[in-house]
Formats: sequence, C-alpha cells, structure tokens
Amino acid sequence: MSDLFDRAAKFFLETQGAICNALTEVDTGAEFSRDAWQRPGGGGGVARVLEGGAVFEKAGVNWSSVDGELPAELASTMPGEGTAFQAAGVSLVIHPRSPMVPTTHANFRCFTKGDAVWFGGGADLTPYYLFREDAVQFHHELAMACDRHRPVGDYDRFKAWCDEYFYLPHRQETRGVGGVFFDYLGAKGEPHPPEKVFDFVRDLAGAFVKAYVPVVQRRQPEPYGDAERTWQLQRRGRYVEFNLIYDRGTLFGLKTNGRVESILMSLPPLTRWDYDVMAKPGSREAELVAHLRPTDWLARSVDH
Amino acid sequence: MSDLFDRAAKFFLETQGAICNALTEVDTGAEFSRDAWQRPGGGGGVARVLEGGAVFEKAGVNWSSVDGELPAELASTMPGEGTAFQAAGVSLVIHPRSPMVPTTHANFRCFTKGDAVWFGGGADLTPYYLFREDAVQFHHELAMACDRHRPVGDYDRFKAWCDEYFYLPHRQETRGVGGVFFDYLGAKGEPHPPEKVFDFVRDLAGAFVKAYVPVVQRRQPEPYGDAERTWQLQRRGRYVEFNLIYDRGTLFGLKTNGRVESILMSLPPLTRWDYDVMAKPGSREAELVAHLRPTDWLARSVDH
Repeated sequence: MSDLFDRAAKFFLETQGAICNALTEVDTGAEFSRDAWQRPGGGGGVARVLEGGAVFEKAGVNWSSVDGELPAELASTMPGEGTAFQAAGVSLVIHPRSPMVPTTHANFRCFTKGDAVWFGGGADLTPYYLFREDAVQFHHELAMACDRHRPVGDYDRFKAWCDEYFYLPHRQETRGVGGVFFDYLGAKGEPHPPEKVFDFVRDLAGAFVKAYVPVVQRRQPEPYGDAERTWQLQRRGRYVEFNLIYDRGTLFGLKTNGRVESILMSLPPLTRWDYDVMAKPGSREAELVAHLRPTDWLARSVDH
Repeated sequence: MSDLFDRAAKFFLETQGAICNALTEVDTGAEFSRDAWQRPGGGGGVARVLEGGAVFEKAGVNWSSVDGELPAELASTMPGEGTAFQAAGVSLVIHPRSPMVPTTHANFRCFTKGDAVWFGGGADLTPYYLFREDAVQFHHELAMACDRHRPVGDYDRFKAWCDEYFYLPHRQETRGVGGVFFDYLGAKGEPHPPEKVFDFVRDLAGAFVKAYVPVVQRRQPEPYGDAERTWQLQRRGRYVEFNLIYDRGTLFGLKTNGRVESILMSLPPLTRWDYDVMAKPGSREAELVAHLRPTDWLARSVDH
C-alpha cells in the first residue's frame, strides 16, 4: 500500500514537470517559478506558477505530498479507519490571456487513510466562447484514455460525475463544458484494485496534455476585442464563485491548514463582477451559456 | 410584532433612499439604477446600483422585505418556533475607485420567526491604505450612536463582535479595520425589548452616512498610481474570499433561493489574484496588513 502511494507521489511529481514543459513549449519565453514548501503538520510540496505569459495569463501547477491527522469530523466522511492520512497529487488551473482559449483544470491524486487507498481526479474545460470542436476533442482524448482501461476507466460515469460536481446551483449552470471527474476509485467497496486504478490514472494524466494543448494552439490566433475580454473577466467571476463556495478540494485544503497560496493559486488573475450581466439573445455569449449544462459531446450511446 | 416589522421594513426603504442620495451628492453625475424584483417564495425588493462613477466604481444598496418558509435545518439554528419567517433590511457595499478611499459595508435588518423578532446589522470599513484618522472617525460616529442608546447600544460588545465576525481564518487577518456588528438583538433571552432595539438601529443607520462620507471626501483628493491600484485589486480579492467562504448573509441568501444578483452585488467590480503577494517590510501596504487585527481605535477603556 505505502509502496503504491510512494510510486504515485513520484509519478505526480514527474507529471508536474511534464505539464509545465508542455505549457512553456506553447508559451515560448514564459517560465514557471518553483516554490518548495513544507507543511507544518507533515510533508510539503512544490508550487510552480507562470504569470504574465503571452499565452497564459496565469498558470499554476502544484504538486504536494502531505500526511498527518485529519479533523475527526472530516475523517468520518472518508473511507478507511482512524484519522491518519497521506495525500499526494498534482493539481493545476490554467487561465489563458485570450478569451478564445478556454481555462482548464486537472487534478490527479492518491489518498490513504487507515488501510484504505484510493485515487481521485479528473480534468475539465471552461471556455468563454463555445467552439464545439474543442469540447469534442477534449472529451474524446479523455474518453480514449478511459476506454483503454475498461472497466476501471468508465467515461460515461466519470463524465456524468464531472457535470454533477462542477455545477453552480445558484447560477443553474455548469462551470464549463465538463470533462471527467472521479473519486474513491480503489477504496474498499469499489470493485477495482488500487494498482489497476493507478494504471488508469497514469494514462489519463498523460492524455490531459493531448486533450488541452491542441485547443490552445487552435484558438490562440482567434481575434478578439474589449467586449470579449470583458466577458471573459465576468465569466472568471463564476469560476471564483465555484471554487470558493463549492469546491471540495479548496475547502478541504483550507480546513486542513493547507498552504493557502497553493490552494488559491487556482483563482484567476483579473476578474470582474458587474451587476446583472445578461448575454444578448442570439449572441456568441448566449451560445456559450446555452451549453453550460450536461451535454453529450461525443454522441456516444449511453446505455448503462 | 408584525406592526414593528412593517415599520422597520418601511424605515429600511427610506434608509436606502437616504444613503443613495448621500452617495450621489458626493459622486455628482453618477446615478443609481433602480431594479424592483419579486421573490417567488414571497416578498421582494429593490436593488439600486451605481456603476462606473467617478468616485464610486461600484456601489450596491439593496432593500428587501421577504417572507416564506426556511429550510428546516437552517430554521433550527435560529430563535423562534417553526419555519415561517419574515426578513426586511437594507444592505450595502460601496467599492470606491481610488485605493485611498476605503470600501465599506453596512446592513440593518429585522427578522421574525414564530413569535420571535430581532434586529441585526452593523457597519464596517475596509481600507486599502491605512489612515488612522479615518478608522478613528468611523468608529467614533458608530460609538456615539451606541452610547446614545445604552444599554441596548453596546459599542464595546458590538465592536468585538465585528472583529470576530469579519475575520478570514485562512489569511489570519480581519477584513478591514472593523466597526460594529450584532445579531439577535431583541430576540427571546436577550434583555432588551425589540422596540428599544429598533430605536437604536434607526439611530445607527443614520450615523452610517456621517461615519463614511467624510472619509470619502477626505481621501478622494489623495494621489495614487498603478502600484496602489494593483494593491487595491489584490486586496479586493480578500473581500471576495470573505464574502464567498464565510459571510453568513451571503450563504443564507443563496441557501434560501434569494435573488442572486442582489446577494452578489457586494462583490467588487475589478479584482485580481496574484501568486503569493507580500507587502514589502516598512511599506504603506505592510502598515495596512499590520492593522488587520482587532485594534482599539478609540482607546476607550474596555472593562466588562
């Protein structure tokens, strides 16, 4: 068990490096800073941040491997005995400068508590303008990674889980066009052994760059003006609302005295809230909003 | 009881008008829009918003008077029997354009549930740069209103309550330099009759304009540059963090299907999050941060 955790932690660190490299190949000239930190309760991490790039206005890719004791109330909501835990993972949010390029988030993590060990994670896409081709391609890469690991990888289930998780009830909209999301894979009661889940997570993490980078390259040349930039900043406000009100990862981090700057590096650089913003009927902005609901991007037959 | 609630609701509506008028006297040329809304569950309100003023970048002054049924879980945390409630109040957040002029929030409300009726509210100041004179004057006006209504008005208690309430645990700092905050005044178990509390709330609401407007007039002429503006936008991020993670009013509104645009009109216009922002030792920014903790601005002896 603990050997699996260690291998997963090492893999997540390698993944952090691979993703940072892939992003700086797209945003030539930009660089990721590297900020190693220790957690007083146990463990630590490495925050890597790119700010002010030509393509990426802000990108944070955080690796961490921490351990310690969970607050009892929190521990009771999770698999495994006791309150001692280990958690290792890589987590990223990328905020491009152009409103034509979607924001993305991905996270892959391994958790142990008592004799339980499980994996969680996923990847999702948050466009400001809708390009159907991008949503389809992003989902397609993730679906192929899932398919390669059936039955552990279950695209239909993880896609639905993502739509359900990244949802803002007060806005009655999804955060974006979704992706995949899962948790507790490998934990007791789940049918698949943790080793098989790790194989799947490894493949999925590798697929993330193939899912996202082509979208960036395709949309980076699209023209835009002040109106599109303003819309992007307003939509970033919704991203903040989700992360601060609903995101379990954010709240878990803050409750367990996680490193605040690593947790909140997911927040966008520049953001705005204007009163009662409404997309004009028939506009490109309205087209996006119309798609902020569970959508079968791959038109795969869903028969469970 | 219900007569008191109706008079309070009417007073809060008049207060909304008086505050909007006082603000447009300072920001000549700016205007408040007026947006009346109905709540599907019962009641409604009037949102008044000023955006893009020369002095105020965004100011929202909301009045509402709503009634209906509370979710049982929420109802069980409040005084009074049953789940039927009425709530009327005026709530405002003012975001000035200049980083030298503090943001302020105030809220005055009356709540009934079963045969319980109580008042809550307060006012607090969130500067981006510290001018001791402003904090002292703001607190002084509020303290005088409290003193005029002793023992209902209890500045020391309400000042401490404000420091405790407007606190960001993950940042280990208060939202600003405080003010006064109170809740459940007049409810059963509280020593003062609701009618006396209403007298106090009326006076305090009137004191708000006298506490805030002179601060605006004094700081509006102060020069500032891009660095100060950036600091303001970063600090506005902390304001968002407080409102979305901790503020009970915001979470209450969202949980009771309140009007989202009225609840979230407290959020700042333009905001930014940069990675690991730290004030330079000895700078004016560091001076502000050093004061984001409970501070005895009036140097009144506190002996309870």
